[in-house]
Amino acid sequence: MTDTAWLGTACPRPSDVHRSAAEDRQNSLTKPPGSLGALERIAIRLAALQETERPRADNVRIVLFAGDHGVTAQGISAFPSSVTVEMLRNFASGGAAISVLARNLNARLEVVDAGTLATSDIAGVVTDKPCRGTRDFSASPAMTSEEFAFALDAGRRAVERAADHGADLMIFGEMGIGNTTSAAAVAAALLGRAPDDLVGAGTGLDSDGIRHKARIIDAALDLHGLKAPRIPATDVLTKVGGLEIAALAGAMVAAAQGRIPVLVDGFIVTAAALAATRLNPSCADWLIYSHRSSEQGHRLILEALGAEPLLDLKMRLGEGSGAAVALSVVRLACALHGEMATFAEAHVSGSL
Amino acid sequence: MTDTAWLGTACPRPSDVHRSAAEDRQNSLTKPPGSLGALERIAIRLAALQETERPRADNVRIVLFAGDHGVTAQGISAFPSSVTVEMLRNFASGGAAISVLARNLNARLEVVDAGTLATSDIAGVVTDKPCRGTRDFSASPAMTSEEFAFALDAGRRAVERAADHGADLMIFGEMGIGNTTSAAAVAAALLGRAPDDLVGAGTGLDSDGIRHKARIIDAALDLHGLKAPRIPATDVLTKVGGLEIAALAGAMVAAAQGRIPVLVDGFIVTAAALAATRLNPSCADWLIYSHRSSEQGHRLILEALGAEPLLDLKMRLGEGSGAAVALSVVRLACALHGEMATFAEAHVSGSL
Repeated sequence: MTDTAWLGTACPRPSDVHRSAAEDRQNSLTKPPGSLGALERIAIRLAALQETERPRADNVRIVLFAGDHGVTAQGISAFPSSVTVEMLRNFASGGAAISVLARNLNARLEVVDAGTLATSDIAGVVTDKPCRGTRDFSASPAMTSEEFAFALDAGRRAVERAADHGADLMIFGEMGIGNTTSAAAVAAALLGRAPDDLVGAGTGLDSDGIRHKARIIDAALDLHGLKAPRIPATDVLTKVGGLEIAALAGAMVAAAQGRIPVLVDGFIVTAAALAATRLNPSCADWLIYSHRSSEQGHRLILEALGAEPLLDLKMRLGEGSGAAVALSVVRLACALHGEMATFAEAHVSGSL
Repeated sequence: MTDTAWLGTACPRPSDVHRSAAEDRQNSLTKPPGSLGALERIAIRLAALQETERPRADNVRIVLFAGDHGVTAQGISAFPSSVTVEMLRNFASGGAAISVLARNLNARLEVVDAGTLATSDIAGVVTDKPCRGTRDFSASPAMTSEEFAFALDAGRRAVERAADHGADLMIFGEMGIGNTTSAAAVAAALLGRAPDDLVGAGTGLDSDGIRHKARIIDAALDLHGLKAPRIPATDVLTKVGGLEIAALAGAMVAAAQGRIPVLVDGFIVTAAALAATRLNPSCADWLIYSHRSSEQGHRLILEALGAEPLLDLKMRLGEGSGAAVALSVVRLACALHGEMATFAEAHVSGSL
């Protein structure tokens, strides 16, 4: 059995000294104090995490984890499972949304098959999976504890590859037909909320489809005994999670342990972030929420995490696309913080 | 007297044919329909304006109009008027927020002194002004009709310079100590609202300062007879406007007439956009609202214009900075629209 003891290693604390220095710098720049709003806050937060007065988001690695979901047998998605593997090829050949964004942002995209139904390796995709897809969690646990540990570790391995290249910041994306169902089940169990509150249209269900999806999740939470308070995240992920969701949670803990800030994407990645903060609460400081998805459950998870995301563009695509769009804003925040003149440098009078 | 007849020339209509083609393209791309949210809508809108299936925001010109305001004599700003000219030098030397943004976005920044107190030309700044600052509108009209016509035309001239370089899109910014007071007065008069509803902290007033600012505006609207319904925008701008605000309004009408979409910045530029749509209602199609400022009156003007801006980053700096940040998002929207693979190209199955 793969060891999961690494999960518990404490993540570093942000640097108060560098936060203060960055705040002082913001207040010295030629603008009314606070007038850059969220751009000031993100630059200051990154400065504290990166232990620098002038934060950077130049070298950014995007890792997309893909997985398939046995629960698709219950008709909970508008697309068939075969689309997951078809999309892996689209990611690798540059035609998917995240491929276009990564290219335009000059960020490296790595695609990891963390558990799709693919029966052979796909060119341009890293295969790092314990099995092909999860079991249908409406009938049995989604994965074994060995499979869970393997998937968590696949996340850690991806972060190690990125760390070798000195990433300033990471973005994690996901793809997996059925994974809004798994993410909603995970979040419902971890938050003690009714599935109805967390279930949305996913790739495009109608209202009947959404009700059906909520019923499937509700029955699964009963089946696996996940309606009690304070169920460990490990149990929740093993029973109703996905292999790519476990990999995401492992990757976020590992990035935080390795001092790499994470720009967190939408509904599924945020559900994985919620799980990560239960697996290792000290990773929370390193998770920066990038956007509010229009998948309805996202709002609830963000509230539970006390997160105020940068953007609200009514996106609901996944793949890390919302975080990638937000990266362009984070980079401008860093540029403003690092390159603006101070009142003294520019010989501009301060306030009356 | 300068002729303002050009203002009335109708702006072109967006192309329905190209809008439809762009919508069809969006629906054929490898993503659930609608899942890119606001990014889809902005790409489609730009396609209709640029009469192309694949819109661009590569060649972007930012023009910043600066002006001074006689009403600063009434103590309505946290900063002294001298800061306007000091900031002109900061724009030109690359240390201001908009300078940093323009450089990082590879967009050309032109700074126009449309009416500051500067007594001589400033290196790197285009001087195109009818006079040095407006009169104190708490005592007399801010400008003569000749000065107003000149300032409008300064806006048109700036657009002509940009059009010579084939701009895909324009951003207009502003700087002028006292100009949130003028913009609030213009918006209050045009919307028939109480100044209290439109006045905010500007560069940093406290609550007493905000109340004082509202009283100054309220008295000025009485003095100039601007509380009656349907006062022409020309009268409003002449009596309580600013030279840079008139230039902004002229520039937006001219850009629309010249088929150049405008990414509209925050409170002051939006107040000028409101005036522009009164001067020539057909320009409205060309004005794309970029962000919601934290200057409190902005929300009301946006509502009156039926605008839903892309971003809400609690910025309140001006200079065109919010629109510049939004440009990074608009560019990604164009890249996604133009570069993503279709379901057919990528051999991905459509929805069930």
